[in-house]
Amino acid sequence: MKSPIPDYLHVVLENARPIEDGKPASYIDTLARADTSRLAVALATVDGKLYSAGDDQVEFSIQSISKAFVYAIAIEDAGLEKVLEKIGVEPSGDAFNQLSLERGTHRPMNPMINAGAITAHSLVISPTATAEERTDRILKIFSRLAGRQLHVDEEVYEAELKDADRNMGIGYMLKAAGILTCDPREAVKGYIRQCSINVNVRDLAMMAATLSNAGVHPITGESIIPQWSVRQVLSVMTTCGMYDAAGDWVSNIGIPAKSGVAGGIIGALPGQVGIAAFSPRLDDRGNSVRAVAMCQQLSRDMGLHMMDVSQIASSTVRTAVATIVAGQSDPHNANCNREVVIFSLRGAVRFAGAERLTRAVARELGVPDPQDPGSGAYIDACAVVFSFRDVFSLNQVSQRIIREDIYRLIADGKNVIVIDPSGVLKSDPERQGPHPCIVKTEAEARDQIGGVGCQAVFKADNW
Amino acid sequence: MKSPIPDYLHVVLENARPIEDGKPASYIDTLARADTSRLAVALATVDGKLYSAGDDQVEFSIQSISKAFVYAIAIEDAGLEKVLEKIGVEPSGDAFNQLSLERGTHRPMNPMINAGAITAHSLVISPTATAEERTDRILKIFSRLAGRQLHVDEEVYEAELKDADRNMGIGYMLKAAGILTCDPREAVKGYIRQCSINVNVRDLAMMAATLSNAGVHPITGESIIPQWSVRQVLSVMTTCGMYDAAGDWVSNIGIPAKSGVAGGIIGALPGQVGIAAFSPRLDDRGNSVRAVAMCQQLSRDMGLHMMDVSQIASSTVRTAVATIVAGQSDPHNANCNREVVIFSLRGAVRFAGAERLTRAVARELGVPDPQDPGSGAYIDACAVVFSFRDVFSLNQVSQRIIREDIYRLIADGKNVIVIDPSGVLKSDPERQGPHPCIVKTEAEARDQIGGVGCQAVFKADNW
Amino acid sequence: MKSPIPDYLHVVLENARPIEDGKPASYIDTLARADTSRLAVALATVDGKLYSAGDDQVEFSIQSISKAFVYAIAIEDAGLEKVLEKIGVEPSGDAFNQLSLERGTHRPMNPMINAGAITAHSLVISPTATAEERTDRILKIFSRLAGRQLHVDEEVYEAELKDADRNMGIGYMLKAAGILTCDPREAVKGYIRQCSINVNVRDLAMMAATLSNAGVHPITGESIIPQWSVRQVLSVMTTCGMYDAAGDWVSNIGIPAKSGVAGGIIGALPGQVGIAAFSPRLDDRGNSVRAVAMCQQLSRDMGLHMMDVSQIASSTVRTAVATIVAGQSDPHNANCNREVVIFSLRGAVRFAGAERLTRAVARELGVPDPQDPGSGAYIDACAVVFSFRDVFSLNQVSQRIIREDIYRLIADGKNVIVIDPSGVLKSDPERQGPHPCIVKTEAEARDQIGGVGCQAVFKADNW
Amino acid sequence: MKSPIPDYLHVVLENARPIEDGKPASYIDTLARADTSRLAVALATVDGKLYSAGDDQVEFSIQSISKAFVYAIAIEDAGLEKVLEKIGVEPSGDAFNQLSLERGTHRPMNPMINAGAITAHSLVISPTATAEERTDRILKIFSRLAGRQLHVDEEVYEAELKDADRNMGIGYMLKAAGILTCDPREAVKGYIRQCSINVNVRDLAMMAATLSNAGVHPITGESIIPQWSVRQVLSVMTTCGMYDAAGDWVSNIGIPAKSGVAGGIIGALPGQVGIAAFSPRLDDRGNSVRAVAMCQQLSRDMGLHMMDVSQIASSTVRTAVATIVAGQSDPHNANCNREVVIFSLRGAVRFAGAERLTRAVARELGVPDPQDPGSGAYIDACAVVFSFRDVFSLNQVSQRIIREDIYRLIADGKNVIVIDPSGVLKSDPERQGPHPCIVKTEAEARDQIGGVGCQAVFKADNW
Repeated sequence: MKSPIPDYLHVVLENARPIEDGKPASYIDTLARADTSRLAVALATVDGKLYSAGDDQVEFSIQSISKAFVYAIAIEDAGLEKVLEKIGVEPSGDAFNQLSLERGTHRPMNPMINAGAITAHSLVISPTATAEERTDRILKIFSRLAGRQLHVDEEVYEAELKDADRNMGIGYMLKAAGILTCDPREAVKGYIRQCSINVNVRDLAMMAATLSNAGVHPITGESIIPQWSVRQVLSVMTTCGMYDAAGDWVSNIGIPAKSGVAGGIIGALPGQVGIAAFSPRLDDRGNSVRAVAMCQQLSRDMGLHMMDVSQIASSTVRTAVATIVAGQSDPHNANCNREVVIFSLRGAVRFAGAERLTRAVARELGVPDPQDPGSGAYIDACAVVFSFRDVFSLNQVSQRIIREDIYRLIADGKNVIVIDPSGVLKSDPERQGPHPCIVKTEAEARDQIGGVGCQAVFKADNW
Repeated sequence: MKSPIPDYLHVVLENARPIEDGKPASYIDTLARADTSRLAVALATVDGKLYSAGDDQVEFSIQSISKAFVYAIAIEDAGLEKVLEKIGVEPSGDAFNQLSLERGTHRPMNPMINAGAITAHSLVISPTATAEERTDRILKIFSRLAGRQLHVDEEVYEAELKDADRNMGIGYMLKAAGILTCDPREAVKGYIRQCSINVNVRDLAMMAATLSNAGVHPITGESIIPQWSVRQVLSVMTTCGMYDAAGDWVSNIGIPAKSGVAGGIIGALPGQVGIAAFSPRLDDRGNSVRAVAMCQQLSRDMGLHMMDVSQIASSTVRTAVATIVAGQSDPHNANCNREVVIFSLRGAVRFAGAERLTRAVARELGVPDPQDPGSGAYIDACAVVFSFRDVFSLNQVSQRIIREDIYRLIADGKNVIVIDPSGVLKSDPERQGPHPCIVKTEAEARDQIGGVGCQAVFKADNW
Repeated sequence: MKSPIPDYLHVVLENARPIEDGKPASYIDTLARADTSRLAVALATVDGKLYSAGDDQVEFSIQSISKAFVYAIAIEDAGLEKVLEKIGVEPSGDAFNQLSLERGTHRPMNPMINAGAITAHSLVISPTATAEERTDRILKIFSRLAGRQLHVDEEVYEAELKDADRNMGIGYMLKAAGILTCDPREAVKGYIRQCSINVNVRDLAMMAATLSNAGVHPITGESIIPQWSVRQVLSVMTTCGMYDAAGDWVSNIGIPAKSGVAGGIIGALPGQVGIAAFSPRLDDRGNSVRAVAMCQQLSRDMGLHMMDVSQIASSTVRTAVATIVAGQSDPHNANCNREVVIFSLRGAVRFAGAERLTRAVARELGVPDPQDPGSGAYIDACAVVFSFRDVFSLNQVSQRIIREDIYRLIADGKNVIVIDPSGVLKSDPERQGPHPCIVKTEAEARDQIGGVGCQAVFKADNW
Repeated sequence: MKSPIPDYLHVVLENARPIEDGKPASYIDTLARADTSRLAVALATVDGKLYSAGDDQVEFSIQSISKAFVYAIAIEDAGLEKVLEKIGVEPSGDAFNQLSLERGTHRPMNPMINAGAITAHSLVISPTATAEERTDRILKIFSRLAGRQLHVDEEVYEAELKDADRNMGIGYMLKAAGILTCDPREAVKGYIRQCSINVNVRDLAMMAATLSNAGVHPITGESIIPQWSVRQVLSVMTTCGMYDAAGDWVSNIGIPAKSGVAGGIIGALPGQVGIAAFSPRLDDRGNSVRAVAMCQQLSRDMGLHMMDVSQIASSTVRTAVATIVAGQSDPHNANCNREVVIFSLRGAVRFAGAERLTRAVARELGVPDPQDPGSGAYIDACAVVFSFRDVFSLNQVSQRIIREDIYRLIADGKNVIVIDPSGVLKSDPERQGPHPCIVKTEAEARDQIGGVGCQAVFKADNW
């Protein structure tokens, strides 16, 4: 069988092809004479599968898309606190090349406008680094993100440098405002060089997917950007990535995104996919007309809108009860009957899942509630089993809640067995007193509960 | 066992209590003399469980929080297109009581500033409705969202009406700009009345949870707001809900939210929870100081930040292979061997899951790829089983992809059996040609595959 | 002989007639259907001569031109301090109907935009006055300025009132900002009524000439606006009268001016003339296209630009020396010779003239300066005569300087005679010691100096 | 006698001395450590008398005061049209160091903010000139204006150059906007050098007086700036000279002015005086606190406010009638009686004076008006004399009107004699037909009228 996904991407591509609006960036000749028939789209999953269609090998300069990733590098090199001191996070409502300094602090409004991006560039390595050192570092990281060695387009770089008056102006203004501490010319030169790195849509999709995958490269597994930094980058892309159309983009497309003046756009949906699209013709706001159209179709077709609630989990907790038909019941607890209550969780458990589990435990094993017939039915169960066999992640709050559940049950005198083959439930070393019994398989769990003759416990579909 | 969640909420509450910054709104006496010791927090899950702590029965006026819900009602009554013609979706960067009309269109920048909210109010029912008719409708819907009959606080209403000069000014300006078509005095009166509806944090948490639950009330199951309208409301709350601190809120807290001048705040995380907090003292931007602190702690502790990528699914597809050890192989297909390939999906499947499934299918059953040893291993399998037993939802794109997978396998000559007890995979009535065999249980699937003696197929852990 | 001035005005009129640009105000029907062929110009001198050409009897509503005069009335009724507390004096750079409140103070930027004009209106009489009382007072003063009874155009008033949403909005905003203290509806109604007063260009030219004449009506001689208030009004007209084209108007035309939406414009050049022009078609800024053209031609042809330095006085002081050929020399001063030094001033003497006189006196009668041959020539003169026969005004600083000169000469032992037929030199009652001798004619002066036989003194051209 | 004016300036100085508000500019060390006790004031008349008090020999850098004069040089070198294309004339309402480019044109708002001043500097000589060439030319002209050789303060220049980031930023922005066509670094360096020229208050007062004197140096008589250029400069100083306090300055002080950050301020009142004041402590807007106070006192005491109407001329026309008592009457005109009507004008005649003359002529010599008893009294006069002996200037419109009067009288058959010793009335070479008889003295006029025995004509006070 051949995967239908490439076919789908072709459909998306061909739907966008007839759009003839817009025109390529004209401020430098290299961009102005871009082949406007070029069209490409790519999609990378968080586990490393990359699909693409169209001119997916054609390279173009990354331009402003670099801003998102250099912001991440700045956060790593200078620390988030320092970065926030120098660059705000509010949408500016202005065009990308406006100075847009915040009243009072004189910070550029956000890292997605040029002023903020030049500042972010200056925070790479250290204020005393040269343009070359910074671009080297940026090029290396971009290459790791793309999964191949990238290069600066020297022709674009030279042309942009000749036309850099506005950015030079911004650089000097930032210096005067005390935001830049290095030579503004170095910062601007480095910034222009970072924008001149060549990529194709496959590179960009993989870079975006790394953001979607919490900073871990989907293929190499390398952790390139710390998770909390990714969160910051995606937040800023959400509110400021599409310049003065933040609200419009969020309500229509709903994916954290960033565009570049050479015609590229990336979108990164946390935990899902990275997408990239390319076509040189730009609209008035400097976003590629066809790339926007392709992103919009992908978002609608694929349900990628981050405010889309279609994936609501109806339940991820299963409760089962087994009776110990043979063997001994809990030798340590004479009060209990021979029932074992088994709670199984599945999937990626966050607060909602842990809360549901807690609710189930409290209902079955708590004091019966007259308002709720059936509650407290297993208050006398001889053992409680938690199975995390099908859980692939437990976030912090879930762990805290579930640990609390377990210790409360132990305090209630219950025998608690945890099946956790992949060790998703971290232990709390500071906790005093008796601990649950943690095992890797159901068989081990059975052994813990009660000796021989337990086959009858394992009716099909119970666990 | 007693649930630890209420205890957790108490911790959140007590952490916020020592904060003494800010002061209650002073523009009307009723708000100015609010009891500043009041403090409450509540949390409602999308399946209807409501937790709360502190002064959770204390009522206060809903104020600007009403804006989010009335925007939804306006969308329902006038249609999204008409609403967008009258009200923008961009953050304004201005304070809530600024006029902030968009250049050119003269639309209020967004529905979360007063100008946009008054306009949204005017679109409820129809331009010819009276203030009373509109407030009646709003009160009814708010009551359904809260799950109990709410009431207007007449004292607050009268006081606000006396101090309504600025809003009256905005109303007349909107009339002059052609945005309001009704009498501006009626619109402002109705808007003030909508803001004077009394709620407590439990009401608000349930209202927020309804947004998180795609507009369906978590307890009553009533669909109060259409899903696409919820998406619009949450998008606008994301970029404009916290006035001129949009970027700051998104990066720090990352939950679509709305605050009110009486001290309430709601947050609604799609598919997860609705939260509400209350305390009368406000910061300079008009947001409750302690309520912001509580929201921030909830977001951090509970991993609620929408850009948090912690829940990444490492896999939701399981592939298993069974050999038909006894009985007949597929009588219809002599070419195949006696192997049956079984693909099981779990959880809420969106694009990423369907794509992973597709990839697994293509790898196992496609033409062997020399680069990928092991690929094409089961190209001659006699049957393919898809099990959706553990899937609770399949979104549109997933269905499309999986249907496409199935029909391609059928076209390849495979015998395809689908186990779908809850019917998550909708059929495509327009599709011509042979269809897969859809069954409810594994036993039925076994029967479909091949006669007697198939016990060996069902080794534990396989399905 | 017939005066050529009316002919000149006809030339100005006919030069403007071919201009077909612009269109009449369209917001109310009464203005929209104005007869666009109407064209008129008028010019009034500060001594009451009125010239006009074209449709000089056609009436139109005064509209925003009223703002300048009502600002003057507000200053009179509430005091300048109070008025400045409520209304700024800075150009706003915004259109006339923008709210344009100053940061911090919330004052309207200036009295020439609607917000400032509504505020000025509200300061007429007192905050508790009704719209009727205020309009009555305004109508009375406007009638005195125009020199005939004016009337409100009730049709315009009713139409404007129906379309008053924007101004109502501004009114409520001003109330909310604490700038208006009365009912905003009353203030706006009164403001609209003030704008609906009908005038023709002859009325306007006379109103403007009253401003040019320091607030004194050129014909009736009535002092209608205090001089210091006129200075304030003209200053504000200079920087804010032509809305967002202040700089352009000042550099091109250079006359304090104000325009109205019905097509009228006034210009008032201090001490010179008042002009008025009328034609209904407006440019984008709301100024009458042809009226602007006529003002521009008048300014250029007539040298009315206030920065035009063409009138520089090369000298207004004449010095003459006479010898007493017969009769006695000064009997009180044996040291002096028989020379009499005579200083004659002419015209309107301000600082420059007084300074020149002082310089002449100091040179002729001071200690000889080796650097300046001829200085101190008359240090021993027996008498000094100051003739103010040809002086029509002496401003305050001139009086102070000249008095100081005189007392210094007296202190030097000189016999000083002042010829001041019209009493332009006020005496200083607090001054101690000997005073100069003040006479009305040259003959009396001669008598003072020295008895009989003084004919020889009076050579032609000496005095 | 010693002139009281220096004493007056001392009073002004001492009134300002106790003011301790503000602090010197701190952005460069050289300015920051200025001796804040320094205080000086100077005043120069349009005929070249210079008064000063305080530290009038202390030099300080001219700073932004240079902007006004370099604007004049730019107008001369590039032409007004070109200059207006590059620099606007509207007040910006922003601080001096804001970019403040006009929407659409991208022009700096005006030449008094840094962006406009750098642009003006770049227009000196030509776009290809070097910073040195431009500063040389500027230094030469400034020296001619001051009346002595000025020098650049190299210490200030070097310090400013080190701190020039903001201006460099502005320069690059202007280049990017297409406003600057030269290397922005050259323009900024030159601009900084122009600001570093050292002056004292006496230099500044003389420079200002040259503006007041229509561009002609009061002492040397050299015409340094063309008159129409002076008008433009003074207009812009009026609306933009004091940054964001234009309206406040115009209403309070009413003199076209410009301030510099080293503590200097100049004021130039057309046709009257140039003033200068100096003290290093600045207010929030960057204007010297004490210098503003001194300007304000000078304006009030000396009646320098340009909207002050105190100098209104009650009359500048005298009419006299003489009878030819002996000798022949006009031999050419038998119809006339023996009366001669004599009109004498005085002073600087502009429109108002010419109009008054015209009115007098029309009344005395026109057809009698039944409404005006006495009009037409001299309709049969045998000759009409116009005496311009006491007129020092006749502006264009006056000449046109008076010539028109004369030719109309000639057309009426009158014998017209003009006494014009200094030739203020230019002839119109294109005018056909008979001309008036132009003479230099009254005696010649008498000869023209009628032969011998005319003594009786010359009673005292007649002419």
